[in-house]
Amino acid sequence: MTGLRPELAGVLTRSRGDFEEILAGSDLVVELIGGIEPARAYVLRAMRAGRHVVSANKQLLSQHGEELWATAREHGVQLRFEGAVAGVVPVIRVLQESLAAARVERVHGIVNGTTNYVLSEMARAGLSYADALRQAQELGYAEADPTEDVTGKDAAAKMAILARLAFSTPMHLDQVIYEGIEHITADDLEYAKELGLALKLIGTAERVDAGVSVRVHPAFLYAGHPLASIDGPFNAVTVESDAITEITLSGPGAGGPQTASAVLGDVISAMIPPATTPAATARLPVVEDVVSAFYLHMEVADRPGVLAQIAEILGMQGASIKSVVQRGLGDNARLVMVMHPLLESRFYAAVRLIGQLDFMRSPPRAIRVIEEEFV
Amino acid sequence: MTGLRPELAGVLTRSRGDFEEILAGSDLVVELIGGIEPARAYVLRAMRAGRHVVSANKQLLSQHGEELWATAREHGVQLRFEGAVAGVVPVIRVLQESLAAARVERVHGIVNGTTNYVLSEMARAGLSYADALRQAQELGYAEADPTEDVTGKDAAAKMAILARLAFSTPMHLDQVIYEGIEHITADDLEYAKELGLALKLIGTAERVDAGVSVRVHPAFLYAGHPLASIDGPFNAVTVESDAITEITLSGPGAGGPQTASAVLGDVISAMIPPATTPAATARLPVVEDVVSAFYLHMEVADRPGVLAQIAEILGMQGASIKSVVQRGLGDNARLVMVMHPLLESRFYAAVRLIGQLDFMRSPPRAIRVIEEEFV
Repeated sequence: MTGLRPELAGVLTRSRGDFEEILAGSDLVVELIGGIEPARAYVLRAMRAGRHVVSANKQLLSQHGEELWATAREHGVQLRFEGAVAGVVPVIRVLQESLAAARVERVHGIVNGTTNYVLSEMARAGLSYADALRQAQELGYAEADPTEDVTGKDAAAKMAILARLAFSTPMHLDQVIYEGIEHITADDLEYAKELGLALKLIGTAERVDAGVSVRVHPAFLYAGHPLASIDGPFNAVTVESDAITEITLSGPGAGGPQTASAVLGDVISAMIPPATTPAATARLPVVEDVVSAFYLHMEVADRPGVLAQIAEILGMQGASIKSVVQRGLGDNARLVMVMHPLLESRFYAAVRLIGQLDFMRSPPRAIRVIEEEFV
Repeated sequence: MTGLRPELAGVLTRSRGDFEEILAGSDLVVELIGGIEPARAYVLRAMRAGRHVVSANKQLLSQHGEELWATAREHGVQLRFEGAVAGVVPVIRVLQESLAAARVERVHGIVNGTTNYVLSEMARAGLSYADALRQAQELGYAEADPTEDVTGKDAAAKMAILARLAFSTPMHLDQVIYEGIEHITADDLEYAKELGLALKLIGTAERVDAGVSVRVHPAFLYAGHPLASIDGPFNAVTVESDAITEITLSGPGAGGPQTASAVLGDVISAMIPPATTPAATARLPVVEDVVSAFYLHMEVADRPGVLAQIAEILGMQGASIKSVVQRGLGDNARLVMVMHPLLESRFYAAVRLIGQLDFMRSPPRAIRVIEEEFV
């Protein structure tokens, strides 16, 4: 949507490509090999050669971040890493840029989709930890070796990165206390339900006295907490600051398309001048008549044939009734319907006709219904 | 947290300050006067003089956006406007930068805090529209003249801006269809509850066939929709795209501190080189022993005095019991407690002692409880 067309200068994998050759022909290097070496050497080399770098490597950033960020500053290049934490949920950019002026007090995060999926299924279906993990593996939400995820280590690396950005203090993965979900039982989740709590693997980075605490552990949340309703493989982060109360960012965790979207967002950001609104690239017609579902509220005389006449008019306009609630009010009745989606013009044509029926006691009232659900 | 110290070159109000003088002494102009003129003239003049501009003016951007953005591009300056939509919820930056690579299909938003507060109170307390609005005015959530808010016009201006960014197509406030909440009755909210729906003033910008539809109207949402649980004066925006499924951003709407935080985030972003992680400005000690609330799960022999002994050990460590659930299991009993917050080291000391009691049937198990709630 920006009109930019990045060109691929080359791809380096274990078995093909030459790093120096690719570097010479590129403006920007995307590092997706993971692990510490040789990723660290390549990223440093690229920045020293004046190239911007986009990386999704949480291990590298949580263990060698200061060295990398110092190198980026020294050589005046950008090092972007949105894909390293919570996939397409833009928490890195928001902490670094949107909240640059806020004194952050606390960050809470569900930053590991595997464990959130496992805990959600244990809660929803009453599964044991082992069964829920097996199901997650079958569905591709957990790797064959899920150790990094279930022990909390993956989340710990991400929380180290978030803490560094939130508090401007160096933070190494080794300084993060973490505990996983391996010891959680179906029983814990049953009690949680009884007590009105949700059980999540929560990463916390917060100011404590004159220091900071960064940790990952299972925790119960009350239903009113914005992270309590984050289910399945989703990720979410809450940032608290006195000035702003709290903002929450949520979305799908790191799947392939999500990480790719985060990486591409970084690539484009590195290439376009900051805060430029590109010229409009389209002139899309504005559509006024769209398809909507509706709630329809009517007060009618309580006599035979009323519902049939209303239903006939709706049917003629192609409106199909999803649910009806009727309630007596002395001689009158209140009729509330929810309709399946249809073109608004056709629905309103029906409403106009219904409004003219002699048994209507007040004008019918319509409110749209948004049908989509997520998770 | 960035080490930057912006200096105030001057303030222009109706009664004091000279625009040309302020312009001459500044690198960046913040426009917060609102309305179309003279805001438009000042913003254009500032950008033509090579100054970055930060604005929170939704009227101006939704009616003269193309002219302003073209001027910014032409003069190579930044025009940032995070504060114009949803206060500190960083939807502008996320649409423009994080999602620059995504083909956005739809944006849904609760972008007016006044109407969301009114509808939330109607739903929660069964108030009439008039009473809920009066209460909002008393609490400062609604202005003395709430017309722009309750008619949906304020939200329409914001949705025009979001649609322009999401779809890269020019979008003027006049092209947005809007409907307010003035006709909503307590009755509608009662039925909503009965049908498991939430009623919100929803802004929608979406691709429809080969065009776009941008509109604001009250709408019912199913409980699973991420906007259904946004209550009170909060704002939230959901962005959908095939590649990313959907992300949700939420937080307090535009109060004074929130708008100020959004504006300052823009100011800092305009001043620091993009995607630079500033050198750490602090070396905060890492605190390992923090205060937490706990859930404690125990299986014990079902005999007199058990609870008393456990309670005594907890009491000696300063642990105070918030709730207890006990359940018989033949000769044994299962005891689940939720504790008030205390220093983790003291809690675990108690757990170690409890684990040594002779009536324990298995090791006690502890999980943290996060107590904060929002909204």
